Amino acid sequence: MKEQITQQSIQLFEEKGFSQTSIQDIVDALHVTKGTFYYYFSSKEQLLMDIHLQYIDHLLMRQQQILDNESLSHREKVTEIILMLIKDIKDKGSSGRVFFREIRHLNNKNIDKIKKKRNQFRLNIEDVVRSGMVAGEFKEDLRPDMVAFGILGVTNYSYNWYKPDGEVTPDELATIFSNLVLTGISVD
Amino acid sequence: MKEQITQQSIQLFEEKGFSQTSIQDIVDALHVTKGTFYYYFSSKEQLLMDIHLQYIDHLLMRQQQILDNESLSHREKVTEIILMLIKDIKDKGSSGRVFFREIRHLNNKNIDKIKKKRNQFRLNIEDVVRSGMVAGEFKEDLRPDMVAFGILGVTNYSYNWYKPDGEVTPDELATIFSNLVLTGISVD
Repeated sequence: MKEQITQQSIQLFEEKGFSQTSIQDIVDALHVTKGTFYYYFSSKEQLLMDIHLQYIDHLLMRQQQILDNESLSHREKVTEIILMLIKDIKDKGSSGRVFFREIRHLNNKNIDKIKKKRNQFRLNIEDVVRSGMVAGEFKEDLRPDMVAFGILGVTNYSYNWYKPDGEVTPDELATIFSNLVLTGISVD
Repeated sequence: MKEQITQQSIQLFEEKGFSQTSIQDIVDALHVTKGTFYYYFSSKEQLLMDIHLQYIDHLLMRQQQILDNESLSHREKVTEIILMLIKDIKDKGSSGRVFFREIRHLNNKNIDKIKKKRNQFRLNIEDVVRSGMVAGEFKEDLRPDMVAFGILGVTNYSYNWYKPDGEVTPDELATIFSNLVLTGISVD
């Protein structure tokens, strides 16, 4: 039931926004009572924090697996991280959109906690870029911090427009974006 | 006064969100009465539509000037559009964030109107990429539609994190991002 409440809430938060969704809306949609909600969550804010934590912890864990895979070059690590984020839009698109949009409804302590994890995800990309420069795979005059923001821009913005069931598959889009980031659009 | 109400509202919508900001909050912040508000706007929704229209119309106008400039190559047009969007964060960052985040509070007719203009801005980038491919400046196997989304991802995401008064100037960031899009990060 906890998972059902979470999934239903993600859907409602995405459609109506966090502020506009009441606990009553959530329990009505599931045909349960408020008592059921409060058995699992102390408040709507705690539920939102749960959604944020689940989302970012899962991403960090999978990113770490990519980083730890010593058989991958730096280019491949960048490609795999992009692929992971684009593929996620199908299953976790709603969570992602709630994650990006509703963070300001957490209390300050929780915002700090989430931002720290979010920054970690970005700093890990920055590290891959930096190591790739040292390894001679990437250009030596890059700013790894800004490049990491650029890569996250390409992937995160996709949560706003990309339809995974459309003409371009997640694998295709990830390839297009990896090529964009790795080699650009200009003819040499 | 109309401009002051608009600017104050943008600030409040950014800080508290559209739903959480009342007309009372807006007039209180300006030390005027609700009558003053209703002299200029029929509702909070009309004010939000005004903010959206001003923002996108101004961007479309300046983008058109870049597109019409026949002395620019396709690479330079892409670079100029990126520069325009990054430079705007300093003066119009709050408008941009309200624009991206609060569109769902417009009515359906207005959402359609804004989305049409937003799409036009994107399709114009797609056209530059496509013409640049024909002109032999860009690689011939690109998907101009996906590349346009990629470019907008890099620039639009910057509205969430970039501090124009920090260490990296808007011109520097625009150069970093143009290089990323045009030539990528990999060593040839």
